[in-house]
Amino acid sequence: MKALGYINGRIVELDQEVVLLEDRGYQFGDGVYEVTKVHEGRLIAFEAHMFRLYRSLRELRIPVTYTIEEFKEMHDQLIQESGITDGAIYLQLTRGAAPRSHAFPKQSCPVLTMTIRPQGPVTTDLNLQGVSALVLDDIRWLRCDIKSLNLLPNILGKQEAKEAGCYEAVLVRDGKITEGTSSNCFVVKDEVLWTHPLNNLILPGITRQIVLDRIAKPLGLAILEKAVTPEFAYGADEVFLTGTSTEVMPVVKLGRETIGNGKPGPVTLRLLEEYRKLLREGI
Amino acid sequence: MKALGYINGRIVELDQEVVLLEDRGYQFGDGVYEVTKVHEGRLIAFEAHMFRLYRSLRELRIPVTYTIEEFKEMHDQLIQESGITDGAIYLQLTRGAAPRSHAFPKQSCPVLTMTIRPQGPVTTDLNLQGVSALVLDDIRWLRCDIKSLNLLPNILGKQEAKEAGCYEAVLVRDGKITEGTSSNCFVVKDEVLWTHPLNNLILPGITRQIVLDRIAKPLGLAILEKAVTPEFAYGADEVFLTGTSTEVMPVVKLGRETIGNGKPGPVTLRLLEEYRKLLREGI
Repeated sequence: MKALGYINGRIVELDQEVVLLEDRGYQFGDGVYEVTKVHEGRLIAFEAHMFRLYRSLRELRIPVTYTIEEFKEMHDQLIQESGITDGAIYLQLTRGAAPRSHAFPKQSCPVLTMTIRPQGPVTTDLNLQGVSALVLDDIRWLRCDIKSLNLLPNILGKQEAKEAGCYEAVLVRDGKITEGTSSNCFVVKDEVLWTHPLNNLILPGITRQIVLDRIAKPLGLAILEKAVTPEFAYGADEVFLTGTSTEVMPVVKLGRETIGNGKPGPVTLRLLEEYRKLLREGI
Repeated sequence: MKALGYINGRIVELDQEVVLLEDRGYQFGDGVYEVTKVHEGRLIAFEAHMFRLYRSLRELRIPVTYTIEEFKEMHDQLIQESGITDGAIYLQLTRGAAPRSHAFPKQSCPVLTMTIRPQGPVTTDLNLQGVSALVLDDIRWLRCDIKSLNLLPNILGKQEAKEAGCYEAVLVRDGKITEGTSSNCFVVKDEVLWTHPLNNLILPGITRQIVLDRIAKPLGLAILEKAVTPEFAYGADEVFLTGTSTEVMPVVKLGRETIGNGKPGPVTLRLLEEYRKLLREGI
């Protein structure tokens, strides 16, 4: 079992120098990415990830000629060559290399890179205890719906959370919770599930959508895709985060406030259980 | 005369693959940069650029051990080896390579890359005619004072300007002009020079500061570092942009509005003349 890299059709070692200085991904963050979970050798929600990738590419007008079948082959090849059955495959596409100038270059060939690394499921302990989350101002740009390589505010927020002993930072813009630095945020109050609606202020999370469409709706839970204030969340029954690596993660402390009785709530645990079941069955 | 690259102490060709897949600059835009003009073999405002670089690094907590003298040596070496006497030296520093995870890695060694490319002065024609600028919403993050590699909104704005036949896009946030996508913006009205104050919403431009401190003040011009509305700019006598590559550039059309009589105004031309003189004398 071995972490591996990939660039434009060839498998490489992660300590190999393979990228050009003037790749626009390196100088401008001019590219997009996806992270797909590998669970027991199977890719999870692969098509949903690739559809979102195509959308991000379209929004930035990065031309790409790969079909979803070709992307699938690359992923399968990395799983096979690495021997990794539980992990994460990272894929990014940049606009390619060109002499540095802000506007799109007349000619440039998009650069596709990937990595595969082992990654276990979220530890059950963390799920059973729940985590703390910081509350920070959302200082990101206004196209958070694009899964781009411009991740500095996310990095800074995550680092601040880590230094405060927290698992994640939940971001607030104009008085409303948007999402986490690398996760979506849900609030449960009186058996209604609240989460920020899909717009330019949040990433359309794949796990967010799985939880809504494949779990919460079939369970008959009431869903409101509306932004809530931090104060609403402090007084809520449950808060949880979703994400490819985060899965379904109970938040028991938000900022300085204890959520509910300080333990993961029944709705969150039920959603987590169903999510784990979907993982095992394949999504 | 030949464009060249540089990475961590060695000069390389620009078509050489030298960067790791998991350089955080490549996957997160986790780095900062500077572009220094080379004019007749001399570096322009070199110390000011390096001081700003140190500030950006500090803000992102990227550790760096290079002294300003060492940075100077690297710049001089690139000028010498390339034979380029009029050009631009691009320098970036990233947090370095580490397995991908948002928070700062425990260990990573910052990666310094540079390029030198020929670049003539702004053509006199463009200065004498003036340029058009688009007016766009400022959708960037709220730390525009950091000269970071997260440049997607700048790219998208510049591209939109280019497609509209414009030289630049001037950005507006909360009803006020902040700056251009890669330049600062000035407005002249009744012999007063207006420009956005230094805060988190704009880059502290080196040319902006040179124009203010080394030219406008000695000339006795009244200066107001206050943000103005686009409407104020439409009715102004003159509008111009400043930047390392932009130098001092008259804007004669802003959005759909003609500025003044549609020709570069006397204040802008005077500032440009003095700026050119400073370039020749060395700054």
